[in-house]
Amino acid sequence: MEKKELMYEGKAKIVYKTADEDKVIVKFKDVATAFDGKKKGEIKEKGLLNTAISAIFFELLEEKGIPTHYLELIAADEMLARKVEIIPIEVVVRNIAAGSLVRRLGFPEGEVMEKPILEFYYKDDALGDPLMNEYHIFGKKLATAEELKIIKKMAFDINEVLLAYLKEKGIDLVDFKLEFGRDKEGRIYLADEISPDTCRFWDSETKEVLDKDRFRKDMGKIEDAYREILARLQA
Amino acid sequence: MEKKELMYEGKAKIVYKTADEDKVIVKFKDVATAFDGKKKGEIKEKGLLNTAISAIFFELLEEKGIPTHYLELIAADEMLARKVEIIPIEVVVRNIAAGSLVRRLGFPEGEVMEKPILEFYYKDDALGDPLMNEYHIFGKKLATAEELKIIKKMAFDINEVLLAYLKEKGIDLVDFKLEFGRDKEGRIYLADEISPDTCRFWDSETKEVLDKDRFRKDMGKIEDAYREILARLQA
Repeated sequence: MEKKELMYEGKAKIVYKTADEDKVIVKFKDVATAFDGKKKGEIKEKGLLNTAISAIFFELLEEKGIPTHYLELIAADEMLARKVEIIPIEVVVRNIAAGSLVRRLGFPEGEVMEKPILEFYYKDDALGDPLMNEYHIFGKKLATAEELKIIKKMAFDINEVLLAYLKEKGIDLVDFKLEFGRDKEGRIYLADEISPDTCRFWDSETKEVLDKDRFRKDMGKIEDAYREILARLQA
Repeated sequence: MEKKELMYEGKAKIVYKTADEDKVIVKFKDVATAFDGKKKGEIKEKGLLNTAISAIFFELLEEKGIPTHYLELIAADEMLARKVEIIPIEVVVRNIAAGSLVRRLGFPEGEVMEKPILEFYYKDDALGDPLMNEYHIFGKKLATAEELKIIKKMAFDINEVLLAYLKEKGIDLVDFKLEFGRDKEGRIYLADEISPDTCRFWDSETKEVLDKDRFRKDMGKIEDAYREILARLQA
């Protein structure tokens, strides 16, 4: 399967059409951005690392019965995926307080949630991806009530699978962001990626940060953290 | 019933204890604030006007079977009310897009919602009253699932009552903020006030602004707007 014309270029990935109208090629970039693109840099080999990490997570989730857009790896930094229309909602699941939960809502950093917290953000760069609720989603007709019910269930199911899997690897899954898409029949698939760009991972013992927060907060050893995650998943 | 010691002083009201431990006196101030208290001023006779306007709304809602903290007027700017513990959540219902719905989420100003939008804000001055969702509320243990169910139903019921009533008065109910409290048995009551400080009112014909937005946006004729609302309610 080879790349045809560019369909979409985002901050971290490029999506190309293929000869099959139901399939696309997703290429992962080394570019790193944070704070709505205000901070920009490059993380060496991030494209390769996030491709490999995402593929492992997508394969795990498919095994557990969760439909994802992932089909197969076709190059070190490229995956073949189902073509879906991305629903412009970022779905965040949080197990431990960090980031905006601390900053915006005053949760103590590191507080373990009794039950996971789910959030929706409007995927809109111009507005800075603001927090929204279900009424906003319906008001903007971004998804139907039925779709949102499926998405919420999938998000919590994904959390259960990833939490258990990562615990074995000595990693705390602090929080993560998901995106979903519909195929032309309207079926919902998990899309986008699952990687240190879109998750907060802490070492279970030392609580060392092993994700993009190292880039956001200029903590150094960014590539090492991404490589460490891949190595643990492959172990 | 006379005022005993001061129990709480907010930006727009002062609450005093009374000889009856289940009752308080709420005194409405002329002070006006906006943007989390960053803008401050005085609106002449606002205390009197908001007391009279709130009393009319609370009496209407009680008639329609909605429990409120309001008991009776005892002075031009004072009402006797049930003593409740305020739940630190601001509940906003929106029928027409204005304010933060336009600014934060990009709804077109004046767009009429197909169904009302309900929002929760965390009542916390230091954090700037941020938007929150039900998972945040449970995570912070601000209310139980049962309480939130009651509060949501009450908020939508109140919207129905006010919309119909205000339509007769030639007023569009754009949006409004409610606060709820629990009595010592845990029963939920509508508390706080319902006034041009906490609602957006537009003239149904001319769309003239008849609420605190005149103060927020320095539109002038602020007192006239508050008086116009009271006059229409009393007509």
